[in-house]
Amino acid sequence: MISAAAQRLEGYARRTPLLSSPFLDEIAGRRVFVKAECLQHTGSFKFRGAWSAITSLPKGARGVIAFSSGNHAQGVTYAAGLRGLPALIIMPRDAPAIKIANTRALGGEVVLYDRTREDRDVLGAALAAERGLELIQPFDHAQVIAGQGSVGLEIAEQARAEGVDEAQVLVCCGGGGLTSGIALALERQAPQMQVRTVEPEGFDDVAQSLATGQVVENPTRSGLCDAIVTPRPGKLTWPILQRLCGPGLVVSDSDALRAMVLAHNRLKLVLEPGGAVALAAALFHPGQISGAAVIVTASGGNVDRAVLQSAFAQGDGDAAR
Amino acid sequence: MISAAAQRLEGYARRTPLLSSPFLDEIAGRRVFVKAECLQHTGSFKFRGAWSAITSLPKGARGVIAFSSGNHAQGVTYAAGLRGLPALIIMPRDAPAIKIANTRALGGEVVLYDRTREDRDVLGAALAAERGLELIQPFDHAQVIAGQGSVGLEIAEQARAEGVDEAQVLVCCGGGGLTSGIALALERQAPQMQVRTVEPEGFDDVAQSLATGQVVENPTRSGLCDAIVTPRPGKLTWPILQRLCGPGLVVSDSDALRAMVLAHNRLKLVLEPGGAVALAAALFHPGQISGAAVIVTASGGNVDRAVLQSAFAQGDGDAAR
Repeated sequence: MISAAAQRLEGYARRTPLLSSPFLDEIAGRRVFVKAECLQHTGSFKFRGAWSAITSLPKGARGVIAFSSGNHAQGVTYAAGLRGLPALIIMPRDAPAIKIANTRALGGEVVLYDRTREDRDVLGAALAAERGLELIQPFDHAQVIAGQGSVGLEIAEQARAEGVDEAQVLVCCGGGGLTSGIALALERQAPQMQVRTVEPEGFDDVAQSLATGQVVENPTRSGLCDAIVTPRPGKLTWPILQRLCGPGLVVSDSDALRAMVLAHNRLKLVLEPGGAVALAAALFHPGQISGAAVIVTASGGNVDRAVLQSAFAQGDGDAAR
Repeated sequence: MISAAAQRLEGYARRTPLLSSPFLDEIAGRRVFVKAECLQHTGSFKFRGAWSAITSLPKGARGVIAFSSGNHAQGVTYAAGLRGLPALIIMPRDAPAIKIANTRALGGEVVLYDRTREDRDVLGAALAAERGLELIQPFDHAQVIAGQGSVGLEIAEQARAEGVDEAQVLVCCGGGGLTSGIALALERQAPQMQVRTVEPEGFDDVAQSLATGQVVENPTRSGLCDAIVTPRPGKLTWPILQRLCGPGLVVSDSDALRAMVLAHNRLKLVLEPGGAVALAAALFHPGQISGAAVIVTASGGNVDRAVLQSAFAQGDGDAAR
């Protein structure tokens, strides 16, 4: 399924570069390779899964619906638009302004709901039934996982071209769609690579689930790393994560902000906090990682100006900016 | 020479992506493709020419010397380091702090001079003779032009993959090394493409030279777009520019800053002002450009924080950030 999804993505998704910098290597104490999915269409890897799912819809599909804090929304809207299908997006009212605005600008119809008082599933089901729309789940969807897995195929090829066959692969992890897709791709294509999840403090449901062997839920629901703030691993993704990934890594919001600044200065990449946690783990928790090289996903770059400014204000602990 | 340089660059230079965004297309009124050379090693295209020149040195070369306001310095230092050669860089005292610091951190020996009172050529010649170093000119060097030309080969291939065979190609232009290299590459590989220079106001020596048919010199010597502030086109580059390029475009510093913000928001790229002028021309001077698609180089991303902040403060005239 991953290979088939990668074929459908050919000519539509970007083959994002695998970047590096001697400055980052020095901080991490090993070579660091950064899979720059923030350069993907709509600024995150989410386009891949969305395109994979939408190009697998039954004939006669009338449109799609998605629940999303933002990146999945943009990916689904853009992919649907390329196929000439309408996209209805159910989004929390407190999602970053840039993500709401971009989804609308890409042609999506956005319906906002209150995270604390409304049940988005009930709301979505009613709208889907009323209009005959197909639901594209953000991670618990086999074709979405297959599409995200194309990142893993590219990592295997690009790392090999850099002479790297063996490495830990750190993946920014929310519900686990990207992580499980990459893990499945690498299991076949680069079995010497070990996929590890990275989450922000307070939202380490996957790390705890991996550690205890059973699904653990986060008590809190919103945070700086909004793109990967999910209550628990998915029904489809959890068995894959449990079989192939771990141990999970956890970084602070402050680590994520510092990693954003370093990606900015050293790689010329704009990252959002949730897209920077894997790089943060590589840079600031080197003692928890092994091997001469580490590969990280930089999974998204849709950051509000205020958050970026707070990252700059905090600084990066790096002398030469 | 360009093909041979491209072969020597294989596995060393990054094949940078050709990016686009529907938001930029809408502003420009046509498709805009951005060759993201800010993602090249050391944050600008300069590594290509430096590597091309350094891998062409006679056997027994003892090291290299370069004059540079910064990007060429970093490219030469990094390329020399990869070949195990020392690099001595003569840099103006008022070069951006980040460029001086990065050149030193990459292992270069930096000698600062005063632009207004010292003759860098006399200084450099003495140091080169004393230590037996080979001079790598920033643009008036055939192998440097050949290396930069590899950008043109990639543009031809990547544009074709996007279905674009015919387009104006806007290049951020200082001394003309990148522009003439790209123009020579496209003359052979994509003859339907027309290369046009883009310069900042007050430093439009190439545009004026192309318009009048003879070399015109700029009166001023420093400006916001420091990477491309050169007094006149080069001796080697001018005949190539005259034969293949034009008419030249000119943008304001304010246009360059707005383009930086849009590249940041829409492409997730960090650009420096001199690396953003071509995008600025495409976005804000569409009436001076023809065709359904335009290709621009985003040639560097080594920007001081203060300049980036002033760009953010100025804004981008774009509603959704």
